[in-house]
Amino acid sequence: MQIDALSLFPAMFDSVMSASMMWKAQERGLLAFRAHDIRKYAADKHRQVDDTPYGGGGGMILKPDVLVRAIEAVRPSSATPVILLSPQGRLLTHQLATELAQLPQLVLVCGHYEGVDERVRQLAITDEISIGDYVLTSGELAALVLIDAVVRLLPGVLGAKGAADRDSHADGLLEGAHYTRPHTYRGLAVPAILTSGHHAEVARWRRRQALLRTWQRRPELLKSAHLSEADREWLAALTDRQPPNASP
Amino acid sequence: MQIDALSLFPAMFDSVMSASMMWKAQERGLLAFRAHDIRKYAADKHRQVDDTPYGGGGGMILKPDVLVRAIEAVRPSSATPVILLSPQGRLLTHQLATELAQLPQLVLVCGHYEGVDERVRQLAITDEISIGDYVLTSGELAALVLIDAVVRLLPGVLGAKGAADRDSHADGLLEGAHYTRPHTYRGLAVPAILTSGHHAEVARWRRRQALLRTWQRRPELLKSAHLSEADREWLAALTDRQPPNASP
Repeated sequence: MQIDALSLFPAMFDSVMSASMMWKAQERGLLAFRAHDIRKYAADKHRQVDDTPYGGGGGMILKPDVLVRAIEAVRPSSATPVILLSPQGRLLTHQLATELAQLPQLVLVCGHYEGVDERVRQLAITDEISIGDYVLTSGELAALVLIDAVVRLLPGVLGAKGAADRDSHADGLLEGAHYTRPHTYRGLAVPAILTSGHHAEVARWRRRQALLRTWQRRPELLKSAHLSEADREWLAALTDRQPPNASP
Repeated sequence: MQIDALSLFPAMFDSVMSASMMWKAQERGLLAFRAHDIRKYAADKHRQVDDTPYGGGGGMILKPDVLVRAIEAVRPSSATPVILLSPQGRLLTHQLATELAQLPQLVLVCGHYEGVDERVRQLAITDEISIGDYVLTSGELAALVLIDAVVRLLPGVLGAKGAADRDSHADGLLEGAHYTRPHTYRGLAVPAILTSGHHAEVARWRRRQALLRTWQRRPELLKSAHLSEADREWLAALTDRQPPNASP
């Protein structure tokens, strides 16, 4: 997968892209990443990239001519999606990350300051994505989050086979509790079932822990989760004969 | 505000924390940030921080003894919130960021691998926050997003007075369109109202643009937005006599 990011602060990508999973994905040839400096595409001698908004008000707006020129220069082909990271986009979800992971190329545009000129959206943006209902100074962080969520799903990136399948959200549920050594820590022991050696029982316990945690913390997710008949029955018993989709 | 982050890859914070707004906040003495290496708190000679899960399965789990020791070492006081970044936490929102921005200190715990031992939650975590319904390799990115969303709300951090008040989500709406120079670009002109000089008209146009964009893209947000009677009337007309809370 090839990802080109357009940014006013391309150095912000450095320490994340050169660490851990992101580094491995590039080392293994599964990800080609470049951060491009938007300022390089400013035409005037002051390299001006932003200006005050028409109609007044504070903040600075990224200029349409500079940003469109930058996008057109780095976009590998006219079929490559150009995604603006913005709090006004559709929400990033595990499902959307899975879809993006199928694409050969992505261009990510990182806004800054007050935002980008609306004509950039009209002329050069094909999709707009938000990583959550909060505001960031930096589109770079949102781009890094999107890249991480997508790249870890590429075949060969994660070490343990199937690790991504066990994720929270992969089947619409939150993950349940995990335990490792020591067996007893500050008086708290690992649940006996996990040391029983009964693999089917362990699997059932884990499924129920995931159902329980989802019901306790994010009951609205149960509406769209992939639930078996056994899951539904167990949830119905848990919630004292309420339907499984009800809030606790 | 003092923020201490616990991480297996503390260098991942470097290039974001030393750029742009994050740098300014520290330079101005409004933010004191430190990233601590969890591995420093491993007791054995191999500096082991993780181990395989009880009950089998892939992935590695952060050991409870190491992580609890690390949290207790860096937590400034027993009143300081200790937040685990995890897809199982409550969702970060602009409102939650505003609440966190009131606190003098935060400890952020970055998970990695398959997750953390459940007993860490029981013994040392006071809150668990998710930045969205997707999975990241790296709790560090989630911590950086939380830090950015919170720190930009601290008084004195953002340059333009009131910039944070105009944000998407600050009043429960998405921001509308912005325009800057050139006036006409590739045949697309700035809306005439923005060059009219009528400040009240411009303010009303902007409000309606925000309402329109929210209704088009995230109609569910209108249910909890702060709407005036005039807002509701305009939306009702827009949606052809449907109630303003209905989906398009």
